[in-house]
Amino acid sequence: MNYRMIACVMGRILLTEAALMSLPLLTALSYRESPWPFLLTMLLLTLIGAPLGWRTPKDTALYARDGFAVVAAAWVLMSAFGAMPFVISGDIPRFVDAFFETVSGFTTTGASILTEIEPLHRGILFWRSFTHWVGGMGVLVFVMAILPMSDGHGMHLMRAEVPGPSVGKLVSRMSESAKILYEIYTVLTVLEIIILLLGGMPFFDSCVHAFGSAGTGGFSNRNLSVGAYQNPFFDIVIGTFMLLFSINFNLYYYLLIRRFAEVVKSETLWTFIGIVAASVLAIAANITAMYGSFFTSLRHAYFQVASIISTSGFSTVDFDQWPAFSRAILTVLMFIGACAGSTGGGIKVDRLIILVKASIRDMKKMLHPNAVASVRFEGKPLPERNIQGVHTFIAVYLMIFVVSYLLLSLEGFDLISTFTALSACINNIGPGLGMVGPTGNFSAFSPASKLLLSFDMLVGRLEVFPMLLLFAPSIWSRRRLIRRNRF
Amino acid sequence: MNYRMIACVMGRILLTEAALMSLPLLTALSYRESPWPFLLTMLLLTLIGAPLGWRTPKDTALYARDGFAVVAAAWVLMSAFGAMPFVISGDIPRFVDAFFETVSGFTTTGASILTEIEPLHRGILFWRSFTHWVGGMGVLVFVMAILPMSDGHGMHLMRAEVPGPSVGKLVSRMSESAKILYEIYTVLTVLEIIILLLGGMPFFDSCVHAFGSAGTGGFSNRNLSVGAYQNPFFDIVIGTFMLLFSINFNLYYYLLIRRFAEVVKSETLWTFIGIVAASVLAIAANITAMYGSFFTSLRHAYFQVASIISTSGFSTVDFDQWPAFSRAILTVLMFIGACAGSTGGGIKVDRLIILVKASIRDMKKMLHPNAVASVRFEGKPLPERNIQGVHTFIAVYLMIFVVSYLLLSLEGFDLISTFTALSACINNIGPGLGMVGPTGNFSAFSPASKLLLSFDMLVGRLEVFPMLLLFAPSIWSRRRLIRRNRF
Repeated sequence: MNYRMIACVMGRILLTEAALMSLPLLTALSYRESPWPFLLTMLLLTLIGAPLGWRTPKDTALYARDGFAVVAAAWVLMSAFGAMPFVISGDIPRFVDAFFETVSGFTTTGASILTEIEPLHRGILFWRSFTHWVGGMGVLVFVMAILPMSDGHGMHLMRAEVPGPSVGKLVSRMSESAKILYEIYTVLTVLEIIILLLGGMPFFDSCVHAFGSAGTGGFSNRNLSVGAYQNPFFDIVIGTFMLLFSINFNLYYYLLIRRFAEVVKSETLWTFIGIVAASVLAIAANITAMYGSFFTSLRHAYFQVASIISTSGFSTVDFDQWPAFSRAILTVLMFIGACAGSTGGGIKVDRLIILVKASIRDMKKMLHPNAVASVRFEGKPLPERNIQGVHTFIAVYLMIFVVSYLLLSLEGFDLISTFTALSACINNIGPGLGMVGPTGNFSAFSPASKLLLSFDMLVGRLEVFPMLLLFAPSIWSRRRLIRRNRF
Repeated sequence: MNYRMIACVMGRILLTEAALMSLPLLTALSYRESPWPFLLTMLLLTLIGAPLGWRTPKDTALYARDGFAVVAAAWVLMSAFGAMPFVISGDIPRFVDAFFETVSGFTTTGASILTEIEPLHRGILFWRSFTHWVGGMGVLVFVMAILPMSDGHGMHLMRAEVPGPSVGKLVSRMSESAKILYEIYTVLTVLEIIILLLGGMPFFDSCVHAFGSAGTGGFSNRNLSVGAYQNPFFDIVIGTFMLLFSINFNLYYYLLIRRFAEVVKSETLWTFIGIVAASVLAIAANITAMYGSFFTSLRHAYFQVASIISTSGFSTVDFDQWPAFSRAILTVLMFIGACAGSTGGGIKVDRLIILVKASIRDMKKMLHPNAVASVRFEGKPLPERNIQGVHTFIAVYLMIFVVSYLLLSLEGFDLISTFTALSACINNIGPGLGMVGPTGNFSAFSPASKLLLSFDMLVGRLEVFPMLLLFAPSIWSRRRLIRRNRF
């Protein structure tokens, strides 16, 4: 382990967080609220971050295990410091609650322990939603984009933080790739803010909902979420942007450099569109009896499918009241999730395509044992290593799910609330069904369960391995590593 | 495809079923009930089976794809004919209900559409439970044990029918292995009948419950299942035998030939015992408040854990009333299931061990990319092919689960009933929670859902692939196979 380089990166991450807090600070000032919750936190972040991140060490090499350790530790620390403004302002007095809310923000989950959202300070509400935006694309990607770092080993950081089974650089330089991603991200977010403003949404609310859809988070500043506006235009705009942010950002880059063929022949894109279309039509048909008009049903189905498959978690209606078939579809979409390389969570469409194709290949092999067939994905033969990676991901994901489920059921809540609370957290969605449905929240869980769910949100956002490998003894022991390398 | 050999095997299977019906026929006669439900079915089975199975064709070769086709087709046909006595006797007038009940019997699921069990004819009740016993060890294994067949290719049949990721022959000759398995199976069943008789259970009831625990099925002749007797002795005996029938039968063979070391060092056995012990203690502690005494709780927990992990599905109490944590454990046990090579269902302990070990190996590889490590299972390095097989099994199993869940939710029942009804069928358990809990049944489902659940029960019993490969176009087309082989 290169502890000096890790300390340096951690220091810079804390400094970045301090810098990011200037936006909510300005918001607080403009609404004549106390600036201290942010000023104090920024001061602390700078006092700790500056000495650590001041000097780049001579040896900047970061290996796979360092990458995992940095990413996991960075996300936990950022959330702990990010929780401070909530506590200092008194809006969320208990630290464990504030920590849950901040993890939920950075991981773009959008699960809340708040019963009433609207009375919160404006600066706090802005920070709460801004964490979605920061966490959506990734903090380390951001650090790489704005602070020039040694290029060679940045890939390990990026691979550990960016969702999806395979991360490719867009351009040869790592920091350039990170910059391009953040530019696309910012332009799309600003575009959404402008469109919402044009539709008549207040500026503050537009920012909050744009951050929530850009990061596919789902925190709103209204108790009734997007449903509070009762405005079909907002439903369609936010619904569409949630879907846009669920697509691999590489595709936008291809659009920019006019490689349209790459976009048109993307099988992940078409599979994603197919799943969305089929789900919207099935749900719309299923709920037409509830809403009378097919078009109203279509709009509600569109928004809710977009919200769940993008793993945002905004709501316009109480879908917990929908018939069993519609709720079953939404439950399945919770696990499918968005495309790799987007800001969305879940298992990811790419992994499911690989899983289905590999299974079909393996079953063909059972019938024709001598047939040799490789799995093709996005036009290229997929290495067996990647297929194995997807299988391992699903296996470990399921194991964490089962263990968390058993622990969470100690609370004694009903099975549906327990199951969907966990699904909503590990897949970074936010609301589930029952007690944690669109009209409920996570306040009833014990502090231990809130920490467990925070862990699960991080597991979901960082795609299982970084969080889990934190517990591996060999990641911390220098001696064992050296000994191992000798053989 | 060797159609002649397939027809011959199918014919012999139907003749075997006719022969097996002589036992319920004798039961009906001894209780002075009408023999016609069985006589008519036996006549029909003989008329169809005899011409097909009379002569062994010259070419007796059966390849992998033939094996899958024979097994899948045999189980569907046997269930269709096995349903006839229920319909003819008038005990279950609708064919689709009788088919569901027979599939549930042969697959050792034990899910029932009957609201009242006790008024049924004795012969019918005997047949209903006897299907568990026949299906538990497998019909084709039985055919191989009693009818001398060409040895070379029997392995494909056995591999497709016997549960578990890897099937080994006990002795060099296939039919000898099948015979040994059936002898162990019979001796254990008779032992259970004798012990139940000694405890004061009527002979008929002893047979029914011994068949139910031997096949890990769970059909009882009492509405309240084993709970009807209110006898702790029966709880402990039946609970223990359910566990004994959940263990790999090879271990009993090792005991017989005095290779005790093989038994003592079996990691599947110890893992199974560990899971059972941990679950029993956790549930007992969780339900002590309900039953007052810890020992009563321990007994109920022991019986119910044995019943669920063995995938039998007998019940002594209404565990749907137990607290959330206990129900969560039982739900997880539903999926874990028994050991490979036993009569139990579910994913199987062996697969889970392989999954966990392979995942740990893969995560170690992430930290130390150059480390080479193989997975060891039962003291031997496991070929990568087998690990891949387990991954494919889990993936396809989950896909079938999700598709079935969406279709089943069209019924509009609550999520828990839908989810556990499906889990109970695909894992061959029987009762679930809610509407299909220990005091409920499957009568409310539509005929289409009953057929879907019958398919899922067969998927569970035959371990996914034979049923699924029935839909593969290449299994039926001789031309495509030839063309394919040219390349």
